[in-house]
Amino acid sequence: MGNDEACVFCAIAHGRAEASVVCEDEHLIAFADLQPVTPGHLLVVPKTHVVGLEDLPPETGARVWELAHRLGRALRRSDLRCAGVNLFLADGAAAFQEVFHFHLHVFPRFPGDSFRLVADWRVRERAHLDAVADSVRRGLAALDGPA
Amino acid sequence: MGNDEACVFCAIAHGRAEASVVCEDEHLIAFADLQPVTPGHLLVVPKTHVVGLEDLPPETGARVWELAHRLGRALRRSDLRCAGVNLFLADGAAAFQEVFHFHLHVFPRFPGDSFRLVADWRVRERAHLDAVADSVRRGLAALDGPA
Ligand SMILES: [Zn+2]
Ligand SMILES: [Zn+2]
Repeated sequence: MGNDEACVFCAIAHGRAEASVVCEDEHLIAFADLQPVTPGHLLVVPKTHVVGLEDLPPETGARVWELAHRLGRALRRSDLRCAGVNLFLADGAAAFQEVFHFHLHVFPRFPGDSFRLVADWRVRERAHLDAVADSVRRGLAALDGPA
Repeated sequence: MGNDEACVFCAIAHGRAEASVVCEDEHLIAFADLQPVTPGHLLVVPKTHVVGLEDLPPETGARVWELAHRLGRALRRSDLRCAGVNLFLADGAAAFQEVFHFHLHVFPRFPGDSFRLVADWRVRERAHLDAVADSVRRGLAALDGPA
């Protein structure tokens, strides 16, 4: 099983580093984020070392999603404050990934918490959006086409 | 098939409203967000009306994730700027959900883009994190237990 000696999430997954573990099985481990956005902020992590969407096996991704879905629903049934739930994936440094072992964030939200998103939210023209959709279709063709 | 007359994503899914569609099948549709964080910002949407994680069938969730995974990889192979990818789910108004038909955001990131996350990122004590993990385990037990 892939196991990077220098990787902190591999160390947690293989019991060589401390974490506040919620649950684990053969494939996955879920534990509390050290720097939580809100109390209840969890990370769902494959035990095998993969970096991101490019090397994540689809079947592992499906397992990660399924557990994140269950944890999101569990947060609403816990005694933690939870009026809503965010799931967040950072794939690549440009997307704010800081630990380069794939992890899906799951965190509860409530009115008055400190989490905010900042962006330029302007509505864009249809012609621009159509061109974007064309570009993504070409990307899908490149993904599915001969290597 | 669930279809809410007042829901804009149902209208798009059933061809009653305009969208810049990337792809669709029997179950899902993916189209460009009207107010993109970056060019290439997509929404992956089940065609059946569901609100969020509470009423999302697990098999639909698995399909949404699988397509989002593929679209994230397609963005990297498109001619759009893409040095990284974020996936984001807002489940509930407190989590910044604005359209109450389940949708998973997929958007490309690049150095200098306008997207930022704001939170109180302090490292928390182990005892606090252990108590959080206990709370979530009780939430999982409530989810799995008798109704
Ligand atoms: Zn690792
Ligand atoms: Zn709808």
